[in-house]
Amino acid sequence: MRLVREKSLLLIVDLQAGLLPVLDGGEQAVGEASWLGGVASALEVPVWLTEQYPAGLGGSEPRLREALEGALYWEKSRFDAHAEPDFAKALAQSGRHQVVLCGAEAHVCVLQTGLGLREAGYEVFWLAEATVSRRREEASLARRRIERAGAWAVSADMAAYEWLERCDDARFRDVHRRFLKPRSPRPLRFFD
Amino acid sequence: MRLVREKSLLLIVDLQAGLLPVLDGGEQAVGEASWLGGVASALEVPVWLTEQYPAGLGGSEPRLREALEGALYWEKSRFDAHAEPDFAKALAQSGRHQVVLCGAEAHVCVLQTGLGLREAGYEVFWLAEATVSRRREEASLARRRIERAGAWAVSADMAAYEWLERCDDARFRDVHRRFLKPRSPRPLRFFD
Amino acid sequence: MRLVREKSLLLIVDLQAGLLPVLDGGEQAVGEASWLGGVASALEVPVWLTEQYPAGLGGSEPRLREALEGALYWEKSRFDAHAEPDFAKALAQSGRHQVVLCGAEAHVCVLQTGLGLREAGYEVFWLAEATVSRRREEASLARRRIERAGAWAVSADMAAYEWLERCDDARFRDVHRRFLKPRSPRPLRFFD
Amino acid sequence: MRLVREKSLLLIVDLQAGLLPVLDGGEQAVGEASWLGGVASALEVPVWLTEQYPAGLGGSEPRLREALEGALYWEKSRFDAHAEPDFAKALAQSGRHQVVLCGAEAHVCVLQTGLGLREAGYEVFWLAEATVSRRREEASLARRRIERAGAWAVSADMAAYEWLERCDDARFRDVHRRFLKPRSPRPLRFFD
Repeated sequence: MRLVREKSLLLIVDLQAGLLPVLDGGEQAVGEASWLGGVASALEVPVWLTEQYPAGLGGSEPRLREALEGALYWEKSRFDAHAEPDFAKALAQSGRHQVVLCGAEAHVCVLQTGLGLREAGYEVFWLAEATVSRRREEASLARRRIERAGAWAVSADMAAYEWLERCDDARFRDVHRRFLKPRSPRPLRFFD
Repeated sequence: MRLVREKSLLLIVDLQAGLLPVLDGGEQAVGEASWLGGVASALEVPVWLTEQYPAGLGGSEPRLREALEGALYWEKSRFDAHAEPDFAKALAQSGRHQVVLCGAEAHVCVLQTGLGLREAGYEVFWLAEATVSRRREEASLARRRIERAGAWAVSADMAAYEWLERCDDARFRDVHRRFLKPRSPRPLRFFD
Repeated sequence: MRLVREKSLLLIVDLQAGLLPVLDGGEQAVGEASWLGGVASALEVPVWLTEQYPAGLGGSEPRLREALEGALYWEKSRFDAHAEPDFAKALAQSGRHQVVLCGAEAHVCVLQTGLGLREAGYEVFWLAEATVSRRREEASLARRRIERAGAWAVSADMAAYEWLERCDDARFRDVHRRFLKPRSPRPLRFFD
Repeated sequence: MRLVREKSLLLIVDLQAGLLPVLDGGEQAVGEASWLGGVASALEVPVWLTEQYPAGLGGSEPRLREALEGALYWEKSRFDAHAEPDFAKALAQSGRHQVVLCGAEAHVCVLQTGLGLREAGYEVFWLAEATVSRRREEASLARRRIERAGAWAVSADMAAYEWLERCDDARFRDVHRRFLKPRSPRPLRFFD
């Protein structure tokens, strides 16, 4: 029901250079996925990225690669990352059962990956401000569908504060100073 | 939860010439139903159409008939197509358990057909951009009701990519070239 | 899941003269409740009305009384009509298990009556264009809450076509001529 | 499903002076929480307030403190009030199983408290016009999430009328005169 730091993994789907220009909200998706990736790293939550057919669509967006130094990358040809046997095996071995999901296109690769994860029993948290499609309404439709399949729509702020739990320790003070405080006045769209 | 090519059937309800002029979104419904019908044919997914009282309301819209050459046609007098014994029997015999549903009017014949299909145990996928009524809000109400009855709202793009599953085979390359690529920049309304 | 003529009863809650001027959508609620009341009478579906504290709030709106000649009236002091023992007993004895519900205020008397009916095991159908409050958003909140309690939001058109089932009998032709045809071009708000 | 006077408790989360200026809807939240707090007191429903790190964020907003004389205050350092052992113990001992919840920020402390209450088996009623965040859309996301966890979104008016049940006793006349009547024409936003 709630995100727990030790059980979580952040999965960023196909935010590739070749796709970005046509996405409604692509810039924000890169920015917020990078931001939550930074929080995740500070809290030792693994960050994974997938890339669909990178020979044609380009690799992950450079700003994302730069912001997420310790991240793990997965190439795929199936739209559903979890349908790739290596990925599914590694995820099971990670011991992480809560997947925070974002990326593009919301209604194709992110949705199919989310449905695959749900079918395999994972808890799925759909990051509302960083999951985008060419048509905004199609991202809404995807969110609605994954919610119907048992996923939870969350914001990056929600995820960060659930991972942190309390405000009276050094962990909170560090993340608050470097991430939460600079972000709080930032205007965002949530693609509902 | 997800559409599977071998289990699917596309059912287009009552997109008839006599009804079209009064529908909000009727032109788009014809265009997108034709488009997904083309994808379905390329992937050997059966396409069926119903017609309500064609003597009075006219036959199916000519552009639809033209685009969907191998389709099967069903006349009906009940609003719920599945309440017609011949239709119900043929559908059971088709072995297809996932019905992608669209047409008009969303809140009368499409809704009643969808509820009939749900009661009979079929999985129902409601095509959001091609299911329309005179009043747009009444189509939204219908969509909400069928979702509450266990159906999934989808876009034609979602259906096509779920039927395709992956991007590295000849099937994808053919459908991408003929259908997906030409459609991607098309502006659409989703009647949520 | 679907309305069935022989199982239905139309319940119009507290559309009283003294409340009407302050309601957002009160005029439409009276018009559409009268319209569906007329269809109900033609199809032998009972029509009941409640009145809250009529000494202070006035009796049911005169146009409604005029349109619904054979209707049954119930005075009440509890906001939930079903909490009044006489009403609950009479409803149980009517043998009707599907209640189409509308009236005012959506978030007080209609909602509480709907929740009471749900708790007592009735199927509840919330008439979206004829269930209103002073504040439109509070009617939306009420609709959302009753849906969460298992009710279905419907339009009057949906109810009429489900009661009718098919278009090839004398019953349809009569109701179509007198009710459906004159209403079809009417602009409506749906309070979602 | 419905609020019952003898089972209810009103919990106002972190409406603190230091947070208010940045909240979208903070003024309304203070006003409506005070209003429902007044109704609660008149009906002997307990009113509790939490304060997050008051040394830094300030105590509860003065107008709230003034309006809610007999209220109980809880300091906390965890975002989820129910994760504080003293609070959880006192709530269990209160014998109240229905918690009407409001305050700020909707998507952090109110949401986490609501999820904690749901996990512990309480019925949660989310007060839509008095539960706010910096970004309005993030409050909507929080409401949607808590609803998915089994909570009910309500308005203060809904709560008051459910606690009152009927209009023909002295209790109703007192609350109507002092609270319901003055509020009825007030314009409100509902953060859906």
